[in-house]
This record gives sequence, C-alpha cells and structure tokens, in this order.
Amino acid sequence: MVKVSVMYPNSAGVKFDMTYYLDRHLPMVRDLLGAALKGMSAEQGLAGGQPGAPAPYVAAVHMTFDSVDAFQAAFGPHTDVILADIPNYTNSQPTIQIGQVKL
Amino acid sequence: MVKVSVMYPNSAGVKFDMTYYLDRHLPMVRDLLGAALKGMSAEQGLAGGQPGAPAPYVAAVHMTFDSVDAFQAAFGPHTDVILADIPNYTNSQPTIQIGQVKL
Repeated sequence: MVKVSVMYPNSAGVKFDMTYYLDRHLPMVRDLLGAALKGMSAEQGLAGGQPGAPAPYVAAVHMTFDSVDAFQAAFGPHTDVILADIPNYTNSQPTIQIGQVKL
Repeated sequence: MVKVSVMYPNSAGVKFDMTYYLDRHLPMVRDLLGAALKGMSAEQGLAGGQPGAPAPYVAAVHMTFDSVDAFQAAFGPHTDVILADIPNYTNSQPTIQIGQVKL
C-alpha cells in the first residue's frame, strides 16, 4: 500500500477555501480516481509542534492506493483537470509525498 | 478528531534507521500514549510529485487523538523520553503538523 499526501504549505499570504476543497475539489478527485483510491482523509492545519507555532500546512489530504503504479494509472489521465482546479481554492503550491505504508 | 503528523525532512546527508523506527521507537510511543492514541500509521518516503523527485520526507507517522487536549495530556508527560530517542534513528529534525480531521 502507498500513501500519497498532498500538503499545502502555510504562509503569511496564503488563502485556502476549505469549504470548496471539502465539498467540491476532494469529491471530484475521488470520483476521478475511482476504485483505485482505497482511502482518503483530509485535515485542516491547526498548529505546529512548538507552543504558538502555526501549522506548517494549511491543509492536507492523504490518499492510499495499492501501489505507485495503481496511483499513477488512476491519476495520470486526470492530472490536468485536478491541477487546474487548485487555483479555485488556494494560492498555495502543494508539496507532494509518496510513501510506502509500513504501519 | 485531530491528526498529529511527525515528518522527517529528506536531505542529502539524512540518515534514517527504519528498522529501529518501526520496531523500537513507534512501539515505545504507542505504549507511552496509551488509550489516548486512537490510530497510528507510518510510511517510508518513496518519491515526490514530479518525475524523479525525491520524497520531501524520508519517513512520517500520523497519529489520531480525540482532541488537541487529549494529545497534549497524553504526550506531555513523555515528551523528554520520546524526543531523546530520535537521535537513535535519525539526524533529521522532524516537522510537526497538528490538524483537525475533516474527512
């Protein structure tokens, strides 16, 4: 199993429309990825690790797939549509992490 | 529900002992946090979002708790012990994200 994390860096000028993200963007992504998507969780950044520190990421989504190949096969054909929607909810450029689930 | 993500930045000189992390560190954390810890998943970084890009994080763990208060109450008394174990498996200084689970 692999996890694909899409995390939106926080900064002073960041804008993020959580309602659009949760109600429009993520449901669209889920529909486009279809059965290859095994799990999806999303969160809104609250804080960092030090007292009073801001969250490093304003929001993040974590998606699981059977393999990197399964992710790429599902995501590839829809990359343009998904990326084109990002400016509709944020001016943050996401950091993407692909990891092998170990636990 | 809140998610606490502890992510270890990748870099040229980074060392990370995944065996120690999975077999010793995370089980110790789980034991110390007790019933307040509602879920734990961990992954090893494989890649970034661009073709050929390295993973932004060499490893990450995501832990869920009922609330920020529940996390702090469970983690606080064991902070020193948990942090003191980090040099046993890595020279990377973790990035910590606390987020409100929305999905």
